[in-house]
Amino acid sequence: MNRKVSVYRLEHFNAAHRLHNPEWSNAENERIFGKCNNPNYHGHNYNLEVKVTGLINSDTGYVIDIKILSDIIKEHVLDAFDHKNLNLDVPEFKNLNPTAENIAVVIHDKLEKALNTDSLTLKIRLYETERNYVEYPGE
Amino acid sequence: MNRKVSVYRLEHFNAAHRLHNPEWSNAENERIFGKCNNPNYHGHNYNLEVKVTGLINSDTGYVIDIKILSDIIKEHVLDAFDHKNLNLDVPEFKNLNPTAENIAVVIHDKLEKALNTDSLTLKIRLYETERNYVEYPGE
Amino acid sequence: MNRKVSVYRLEHFNAAHRLHNPEWSNAENERIFGKCNNPNYHGHNYNLEVKVTGLINSDTGYVIDIKILSDIIKEHVLDAFDHKNLNLDVPEFKNLNPTAENIAVVIHDKLEKALNTDSLTLKIRLYETERNYVEYPGE
Amino acid sequence: MNRKVSVYRLEHFNAAHRLHNPEWSNAENERIFGKCNNPNYHGHNYNLEVKVTGLINSDTGYVIDIKILSDIIKEHVLDAFDHKNLNLDVPEFKNLNPTAENIAVVIHDKLEKALNTDSLTLKIRLYETERNYVEYPGE
Amino acid sequence: MNRKVSVYRLEHFNAAHRLHNPEWSNAENERIFGKCNNPNYHGHNYNLEVKVTGLINSDTGYVIDIKILSDIIKEHVLDAFDHKNLNLDVPEFKNLNPTAENIAVVIHDKLEKALNTDSLTLKIRLYETERNYVEYPGE
Amino acid sequence: MNRKVSVYRLEHFNAAHRLHNPEWSNAENERIFGKCNNPNYHGHNYNLEVKVTGLINSDTGYVIDIKILSDIIKEHVLDAFDHKNLNLDVPEFKNLNPTAENIAVVIHDKLEKALNTDSLTLKIRLYETERNYVEYPGE
Repeated sequence: MNRKVSVYRLEHFNAAHRLHNPEWSNAENERIFGKCNNPNYHGHNYNLEVKVTGLINSDTGYVIDIKILSDIIKEHVLDAFDHKNLNLDVPEFKNLNPTAENIAVVIHDKLEKALNTDSLTLKIRLYETERNYVEYPGE
Repeated sequence: MNRKVSVYRLEHFNAAHRLHNPEWSNAENERIFGKCNNPNYHGHNYNLEVKVTGLINSDTGYVIDIKILSDIIKEHVLDAFDHKNLNLDVPEFKNLNPTAENIAVVIHDKLEKALNTDSLTLKIRLYETERNYVEYPGE
Repeated sequence: MNRKVSVYRLEHFNAAHRLHNPEWSNAENERIFGKCNNPNYHGHNYNLEVKVTGLINSDTGYVIDIKILSDIIKEHVLDAFDHKNLNLDVPEFKNLNPTAENIAVVIHDKLEKALNTDSLTLKIRLYETERNYVEYPGE
Repeated sequence: MNRKVSVYRLEHFNAAHRLHNPEWSNAENERIFGKCNNPNYHGHNYNLEVKVTGLINSDTGYVIDIKILSDIIKEHVLDAFDHKNLNLDVPEFKNLNPTAENIAVVIHDKLEKALNTDSLTLKIRLYETERNYVEYPGE
Repeated sequence: MNRKVSVYRLEHFNAAHRLHNPEWSNAENERIFGKCNNPNYHGHNYNLEVKVTGLINSDTGYVIDIKILSDIIKEHVLDAFDHKNLNLDVPEFKNLNPTAENIAVVIHDKLEKALNTDSLTLKIRLYETERNYVEYPGE
Repeated sequence: MNRKVSVYRLEHFNAAHRLHNPEWSNAENERIFGKCNNPNYHGHNYNLEVKVTGLINSDTGYVIDIKILSDIIKEHVLDAFDHKNLNLDVPEFKNLNPTAENIAVVIHDKLEKALNTDSLTLKIRLYETERNYVEYPGE
């Protein structure tokens, strides 16, 4: 069969972060980011859903071996983000506010580079809490 | 970054309702709507997922402040629907059958009016139960 | 093996209800029960967890055939409660306020009578919402 | 209202399966499919999400009566797959590797044939575990 | 009815923390606490389940008004812990390692003092992740 | 603090199985076990919750290092059961019907032996599906 199917893998990491714009006053940061601006950080259990779309390989029946996908996510995202302080420990957020939106974009770009193929497309969903989540289709 | 991202907020309300078409006989209503036609109403815990899509604001890192989105949903949907009888207490369903499909459309139109912007698009998913849900993309 | 094990079955029903004490004034009912006192009712998706504890039968490996348990719950609880108005349609709540606590006790007593055995003990958990639930161990 | 809405129904089946390509050596099968190649089979609780998109019928307020959709899924998918060995008991997988991708495509094609209408479109999501799932939009 | 029933309320807070014993060397802390010892902190979405057991009040049908219980949890736990750094911002953990076990005990003792009654018993369950959680029955 | 706390770890395995009593006729097996008696097996995603109760260690703040608990479960349960056919591949079920009840007892006894301590008590909960699960407290 020559069918286009999407494969999803759900992964998980824990991290501390703080929302802050260094070009604003403390009062403005507090007004815009509220509790999320706490200078001592707070944290989340992030659930990360990676969606990879492509044609089914007729030999394996796979779009992508989900074990390989999981290994790529582990190497390029979890090892860099899990049990870390996003603001202090992760270079991508040295000058970028680690909102859920920006984290999803950074993860997308890291995985797109790691997958390194035109035959698969990538979409990222990131759950910051069970009630707040974002999605970046990379378009 | 000039990236288009979707932000999701999950909210919740409880309500009673009854499915009924007043232009049909009772027998026809019972035949079509079954247990959902009970004249004394039944009820649900509705889970409401609101998806807002737009560009990331480079100052905040937000597509939309999810606290503001949550407040808009509370004012325009939850205060009107929560702990209510949809057929009797909610004007929009005086002459419209409160199926999950119609509830999703009504919520979409209320929120689109409240957001009042061309730079954000809106999609509604409404869970009537864990196994039955609907989605309205407003297109 | 002569081991005591608990078997759990999760079932589901939808119902409308209203919290109200007829011996109180409307103002007092509103003060105590708030939105739950809405005269036109509201509703819930109730998740019901039934726990049955007993010895493993060495012929079947079962404490109780969970298909039989499910049928008993269906006959004695779901057929009576599902898609009903608890206040108006269910005799047990004609003079008993249908709080989650009281619903759990009523379900326990109906199932204990239906099981009709000293060799099994029964515990009821009832989820009114994902965040509010009660448990009655029948002791 | 003349609105296009999607209706979702979540169903469930349990099955055993084995991933295997008969044109490969045992060593190659083990290398590619790992634990999933166990000759004695392993198994899953599959969660199946069926999405049907169409216009709301103004008489019923439904896109499709979800009870009818559920009956169609039961007749054409659950009765064929539930508590079965996909490799041995399901004809579609006699010569097709029962990966999640291929199962989703087979389910899609069976349901599309059963629905037999141009006015509804169909999308299948199949959860093999909570962390691994696939989606087939039938395009 | 004079029945003893348990009422559960599920609440949620986000926090940063670090596991560390100041009487140990850095090497020993790293050996015992691993990634959880990161000096820049990491974080979690904590789900908190509070179980209150007592007799049903025959006037209300409640063991405790769950709105009042929720307000007590908010005042005594969420306002103190949510969007905080447990090590730096919460006095109870100045000299107490904020493991899930210790957090549960601290929450129990704060709520027991706030409830201030012999007629209700209290049990705390704290989810640090979906796969790791603890329970403290206060006995 | 000298407090008794329970620590929970949730793990997961997939397996095939068949319910069958070799001392019964095929007809009797079919009558009692129904679809679960399929000679070609069916399967499940089993969720395993291990509860360990003991005193908090004042040096670590742990009852047990949950990483160590997870490793013990992996070595003694997951490596033996995951992606296996319980009837054919797991010695404990050669002459024992692999019902959820019996699987829970076997897991309990394996883990109790592995933990090998009087200072911790053990309780097992095993989810065969989201709606059917069992619990064995080892008493």
